[in-house]
Amino acid sequence: MPQEIIFSNDVASVLQAQILNLRPAGLFIVADSNTLPIALSLGLTQAHVITVPAGDDNKNLDSLSHIWTELQRNGATRQSLLLSVGGGMVTDIGGFAAATFKRGIRFINVPTSLLGAVDAAVGGKTGINFHNLKNEIGAFAPAHAVIISSCFLGSLPHSELLSGFAEMIKHALLCGEPQLSELLATDLADLDPERTLRLIRTSVMVKRDIVLKDPHESGIRKALNLGHTAGHAFESFALNAGRPVPHGFAVAWGLVTELVLSHMRFQFSSQLLHQVADFIGQHFGPFFITCDDYDALLSIMAHDKKSRSGEINCTLLSRCGQFHTDVTVSPDEMTAALDIYRDLLHI
Amino acid sequence: MPQEIIFSNDVASVLQAQILNLRPAGLFIVADSNTLPIALSLGLTQAHVITVPAGDDNKNLDSLSHIWTELQRNGATRQSLLLSVGGGMVTDIGGFAAATFKRGIRFINVPTSLLGAVDAAVGGKTGINFHNLKNEIGAFAPAHAVIISSCFLGSLPHSELLSGFAEMIKHALLCGEPQLSELLATDLADLDPERTLRLIRTSVMVKRDIVLKDPHESGIRKALNLGHTAGHAFESFALNAGRPVPHGFAVAWGLVTELVLSHMRFQFSSQLLHQVADFIGQHFGPFFITCDDYDALLSIMAHDKKSRSGEINCTLLSRCGQFHTDVTVSPDEMTAALDIYRDLLHI
Repeated sequence: MPQEIIFSNDVASVLQAQILNLRPAGLFIVADSNTLPIALSLGLTQAHVITVPAGDDNKNLDSLSHIWTELQRNGATRQSLLLSVGGGMVTDIGGFAAATFKRGIRFINVPTSLLGAVDAAVGGKTGINFHNLKNEIGAFAPAHAVIISSCFLGSLPHSELLSGFAEMIKHALLCGEPQLSELLATDLADLDPERTLRLIRTSVMVKRDIVLKDPHESGIRKALNLGHTAGHAFESFALNAGRPVPHGFAVAWGLVTELVLSHMRFQFSSQLLHQVADFIGQHFGPFFITCDDYDALLSIMAHDKKSRSGEINCTLLSRCGQFHTDVTVSPDEMTAALDIYRDLLHI
Repeated sequence: MPQEIIFSNDVASVLQAQILNLRPAGLFIVADSNTLPIALSLGLTQAHVITVPAGDDNKNLDSLSHIWTELQRNGATRQSLLLSVGGGMVTDIGGFAAATFKRGIRFINVPTSLLGAVDAAVGGKTGINFHNLKNEIGAFAPAHAVIISSCFLGSLPHSELLSGFAEMIKHALLCGEPQLSELLATDLADLDPERTLRLIRTSVMVKRDIVLKDPHESGIRKALNLGHTAGHAFESFALNAGRPVPHGFAVAWGLVTELVLSHMRFQFSSQLLHQVADFIGQHFGPFFITCDDYDALLSIMAHDKKSRSGEINCTLLSRCGQFHTDVTVSPDEMTAALDIYRDLLHI
């Protein structure tokens, strides 16, 4: 079932039209403590608002159980509609709550962060973290609609913008060199809403086209895992060490690592690798690791959802737009790539 | 995705063939404390066995979380296979755990009870109870295969056999009068394995044909809810009152109630109604309720998953094989039907 993706900076009107069309029996909003003001600003006075604490470490079973309980207590039925208003944490957990409440009620995603707009809110992946493993429990469940705007981005911290930008770089790498060049030439300190919404649309369409061809990640959808084997490992490692990093930052560093592997295995352009690494080093800084951390990182990679029988699997590129999924990377290769990652980011 | 349904009394061989074919990376069995001996008898020495406490009140978030944790701890990947060996409680929770672990791994159902074989294990409904509401959280997720046999039924308590028989009566009512007559003429004290497997196959095929036409219960699958609006209410009411009853018994009493409604609204044959009520009274006995319980029962029915905006919805019959879904029943009609239910069962 394809998702309807609507690009508009008049979110309230788009939502009113959707609700008028769907005529749900009961309207529910899931927001977190940060996005609650945005949820309340949408003018949906008839909605029950369910709030979960902000932060990816709250994307857990407790928050999920809280949403289920509130839906139940307030009489949600199979004909109810749930709106998730927030970043990826909110759309992930809200979508999973909706996908499993009474075996599935309809939901609409209203991403409020750049990362949510270009990644989490689109494509039907929902879920929660479990025992420190990211998105360990979840379901493939397409939102009825995703409403994407740039009007909530102004209030985001700069680090949040960067987080979304990392996924946009990934999409550009999967699309073509012109798209990559345009992004790397973007002045992040001077983004106007029009240009931003245009860049977002380009980026979302890369993801949408891939997901449409393979909704359940049995084939080419794995392209979207570019940067994520190393990225998730950085993210989990940081979480375990008590110094969590934003998902997008982890993806940025993961992209550098996996472009190194792409160069080693598929002769991906050294010049582009250096351009991307320079951009990421300049804007995201480095994620400090030492050789002593490699064992822990490799172990996380081997337990990744994408892994088959304990091997490390990556999506790699031979050039922009040309990807290879399910590439098995040996521990030695990954170790070499982590060494070069540290060189490129001057660690 | 249609489920493969295999009827065989050589379950171990069928499973070996399935596993040889699927070549899973990691094999897991979910069983409960009652069905653990059956699980161990299948000869799958390579499997990790995960045990949950028996009983429908353990079909809850704690048991689900335990299964997820054990899968994770023992290195389950997306290429792993989970076998649910048990009654409906085990196949429901095992299926839901599999459907949501890493957003879905493959699973095979091996029902060990008659009720599980003719109902829970087939059709893709998975889930758990939540805050005393049955199957409140779950997913539609088809098993890779369902292996149905009659060889585990011999050790079942008589009440468990009866529980399954109630669903078989329901399927016969949805199929035709000859099937119903054959069932009502069955001597439950003298069932041989061959005849039992033949009756089970006929019954399962009724359900399978309906589910194939409507996997997500948006239309005719609701036929299978016959007896279940009143039945679930009896079951939840009994659970809340601390005197739980088997699901099949609740369905049997629900069938009597809804055949009364079918007679009132659609002139369902009074003679057949009495035949079914007599059979059920004789084998299942009555579920004792008084007028003072009606408010609680009606309130549960109005909060049923099948309900739309707080109304009571039933599937009713005009005759065997001819059903009407989504029939809204007024509180007065349901009250009258409960009165007649009590008369028919001599309460």
